[in-house]
Amino acid sequence: MQFIHNSWYVAGWSKEFTRELSKATILGENIVFYRTEAGTVTALEDRCPHKLLPLSEGRLIGDDLQCGYHGVTFGCDGKCVRVPGQSVLPKSAWVRHFPTFERHNIVWIWMGDEGKADESLVFDLPELSSPDYAPHQGNPLPYASNYLNVADNLCDPAHVSFVHPTTLGNPEMEDLPIDSEMTGDGTVITSRWTRDTPPVGVFQGLSGFGVNFRGNVDRWQYYIMNVPCVAVIDFGSAEVSQEITYDRRAEGVHIYAIHFLTPVDEFRTIDRWMHVRNFALQDKAVGGAMNDLFNVAFAEDKVILEAIQIEERRPRSAEQEQRRPLRIAIDKGSNLYRRRIDELIKQEQVND
Amino acid sequence: MQFIHNSWYVAGWSKEFTRELSKATILGENIVFYRTEAGTVTALEDRCPHKLLPLSEGRLIGDDLQCGYHGVTFGCDGKCVRVPGQSVLPKSAWVRHFPTFERHNIVWIWMGDEGKADESLVFDLPELSSPDYAPHQGNPLPYASNYLNVADNLCDPAHVSFVHPTTLGNPEMEDLPIDSEMTGDGTVITSRWTRDTPPVGVFQGLSGFGVNFRGNVDRWQYYIMNVPCVAVIDFGSAEVSQEITYDRRAEGVHIYAIHFLTPVDEFRTIDRWMHVRNFALQDKAVGGAMNDLFNVAFAEDKVILEAIQIEERRPRSAEQEQRRPLRIAIDKGSNLYRRRIDELIKQEQVND
Amino acid sequence: MQFIHNSWYVAGWSKEFTRELSKATILGENIVFYRTEAGTVTALEDRCPHKLLPLSEGRLIGDDLQCGYHGVTFGCDGKCVRVPGQSVLPKSAWVRHFPTFERHNIVWIWMGDEGKADESLVFDLPELSSPDYAPHQGNPLPYASNYLNVADNLCDPAHVSFVHPTTLGNPEMEDLPIDSEMTGDGTVITSRWTRDTPPVGVFQGLSGFGVNFRGNVDRWQYYIMNVPCVAVIDFGSAEVSQEITYDRRAEGVHIYAIHFLTPVDEFRTIDRWMHVRNFALQDKAVGGAMNDLFNVAFAEDKVILEAIQIEERRPRSAEQEQRRPLRIAIDKGSNLYRRRIDELIKQEQVND
Repeated sequence: MQFIHNSWYVAGWSKEFTRELSKATILGENIVFYRTEAGTVTALEDRCPHKLLPLSEGRLIGDDLQCGYHGVTFGCDGKCVRVPGQSVLPKSAWVRHFPTFERHNIVWIWMGDEGKADESLVFDLPELSSPDYAPHQGNPLPYASNYLNVADNLCDPAHVSFVHPTTLGNPEMEDLPIDSEMTGDGTVITSRWTRDTPPVGVFQGLSGFGVNFRGNVDRWQYYIMNVPCVAVIDFGSAEVSQEITYDRRAEGVHIYAIHFLTPVDEFRTIDRWMHVRNFALQDKAVGGAMNDLFNVAFAEDKVILEAIQIEERRPRSAEQEQRRPLRIAIDKGSNLYRRRIDELIKQEQVND
Repeated sequence: MQFIHNSWYVAGWSKEFTRELSKATILGENIVFYRTEAGTVTALEDRCPHKLLPLSEGRLIGDDLQCGYHGVTFGCDGKCVRVPGQSVLPKSAWVRHFPTFERHNIVWIWMGDEGKADESLVFDLPELSSPDYAPHQGNPLPYASNYLNVADNLCDPAHVSFVHPTTLGNPEMEDLPIDSEMTGDGTVITSRWTRDTPPVGVFQGLSGFGVNFRGNVDRWQYYIMNVPCVAVIDFGSAEVSQEITYDRRAEGVHIYAIHFLTPVDEFRTIDRWMHVRNFALQDKAVGGAMNDLFNVAFAEDKVILEAIQIEERRPRSAEQEQRRPLRIAIDKGSNLYRRRIDELIKQEQVND
Repeated sequence: MQFIHNSWYVAGWSKEFTRELSKATILGENIVFYRTEAGTVTALEDRCPHKLLPLSEGRLIGDDLQCGYHGVTFGCDGKCVRVPGQSVLPKSAWVRHFPTFERHNIVWIWMGDEGKADESLVFDLPELSSPDYAPHQGNPLPYASNYLNVADNLCDPAHVSFVHPTTLGNPEMEDLPIDSEMTGDGTVITSRWTRDTPPVGVFQGLSGFGVNFRGNVDRWQYYIMNVPCVAVIDFGSAEVSQEITYDRRAEGVHIYAIHFLTPVDEFRTIDRWMHVRNFALQDKAVGGAMNDLFNVAFAEDKVILEAIQIEERRPRSAEQEQRRPLRIAIDKGSNLYRRRIDELIKQEQVND
């Protein structure tokens, strides 16, 4: 599997990085992380060039990282600062350094050419800085499925009726049409309005937090996929009597569920999700409660996405090999997404 | 590994199929099963052609099977009956349907060309319909070994002295000759008579059920392999004084152990076994008791057959590569069987 | 991975071999072991040439080994002595026989041409026969790492400061130079003297056994690698006032830690270790106590060596592929060792 390297990916929530060494595999590469004494998150190739021991088996000496086998030591720029037993530092004594960026308690890592790491490209959402919205970071969700399958699911408002009938979907929306478009900057937006139906399960589950609908609601779902790996699900509901429109979403119960996908390797993805809401802003219990509600739905996605991955890896019979996959109307969003991914991968290959 | 597709295989005992979805891998293909409201066992390819989700993750809507991801729905003939969000049903919206047949509480599946599925070819044994014999279905035995290794064992009366010395064999028969032949229809029969020796362990274990030999017995073993995958072990014992012969087997203690082999994939096989006996016909305890007795022996086979499979998969050294396998006199039955399998596989390839 | 076959390897401590069948994989080959009634350790290819069942699933009949499937029986020279059901013994009825040799409670096996198995080549250490030294066999240490990585570690006095700071090393020796040489017979000796520093952890841990240093010590480390797979770590300490020299090592606290490496396959190694000491000769508790002390260090090695093996097996990125490994001054011993291994493998290939 090809990955898009020249992009910012989420390495973790800020609280995941401390003065302890931590490690992760991202786009198939092993990376060791630590904060410097000044607090900056450092990301280095997790592989000593001497005997290949992961540096995450070593220890911090101030801001430098010492290999646990023979003490070869690297600065937080990846350059060697010490080889025990000799005074000359060989030219090949370095490990790769990855740029990082931290904002809104999210740590990003740039996986491509260091010279192209433009911090202005890091994803942002104005509501993350707004006093009218409250954010909450959920638990990282590990999927044994590649990121394209997970992203498919996040370009797809239609699956909720079948995968999440008790939480995010209901039967009334099973056959409603989907709108899909790609914006000028390559963002894929898939959306659907469901008018005058009962509120779905998660909205019923929020009644303890001031969300109380008296009857049917109008509901919107905007799945905004910032290619390659940040999906913003902009959704909400309002009483039918409010005659809600796109521009007046803030007058309804409005939630952003943001999914930051970090491809681990060809077959695994971490989905770090958070929500941003416009109600119960001061209520400290609502974040955890919403996390619990959504985790019911995410567990349903996990079953689907991992079963698909297993099936993709199975050898096909000769007869299956000849058949074309079924493509249907609701696929348009994920088709746009996958086409855009292919374009970006080709662009990187041409530029190499 | 090549399989013979144009053949009926046992999918399971009747009680394994209900209105709940179940699944199995047979000849390397994933299949989902359910009974219709009328009770017919339906077998479909377990893979939605849309996003490849196994349909066994979905749900039944009446007699139709709905995919758990986007609700694409298939009838019990495998043809699509609904695609949510659109009225046109694409041509590629179908899954493979497998013919099934049910008799004697056994469900069969045809793995080859649907047009060739001839129900008159399904294995039968007259004693399964006889009031003088009682059947009992044992527990399915999963072997981590390919079906040819398991079948070898079922063309082989000689191994019992060494693998099953306390249950099915005894030292007196170690060096007795074996008869092997192939009948005109390709059935392989391997047989041995052991005259005037003590009864083997399982017959001693049946003393509570009216099987009481006073001294030595004459014993017969007929291993009848209905190629590819149904082995009937026709065996029994009679007092020496009875001067038992083949045609008068019913006068002795007579048991059929029938092994229905279902190849899972190249390295795994399910052996569903049942017995049919001519004693203690009304005794409801004897079936379970015989199952327990035979499972001691089958556990001994499992050790052997799985160790052989592991060894077959190990890389051989260059020196081992040059050596020819040892072939001995008692192999004749399994040699006939494997040659017949090769012929049938070649026939299928020519006809494709 | 290529192995050196014409060499004696340790098959196990004497106590590991009894009249029970045991088995091991050595250089990727499966071997079954047993003692004859006269006590000789027999080593045969663990694979019946008939149906490939490992003979270790069979049973001993006197000094002969009977296959557990059909009773084909082999003498302790590997030649077939019986095929049940027939009187002719086919020419292909044999398994490979491996020469063995037993001394100092160690059982050796020759993995190459039987004609070249020269017992005068078996490793010995005079101190194993000396009344001034006491031996103790430790527990076998399984490493999920190939033998070259384990051997690297045993040609390497430098790693102790970083991997074993509380047991075998201390910070004072981090930057001391290493001497490395290859002797005329191809033995690789890597050594270091550390003068006038505090005793390391294991020597402090021996205070209950009469090892009590009052202040700083002089310390020697000689890592003598008998290629391919016997490493003798000759090390010890003496009070600074003793002005210890190489020839007078016996006047200090003197320990040999001998590591017998047995390559299991490309990715696994058994390290059987023993020590020979010149103190507390009659104290029966000291052997176990030293074993416990050293096992702390060996557990530290295990983490390192297994992490390196995992990293060696990971696919490298295109960028990593282009980089050369870092080579540093302390590598000289392991470089000499690996070069010698390459030479010996080439010699075997030429002679084949």
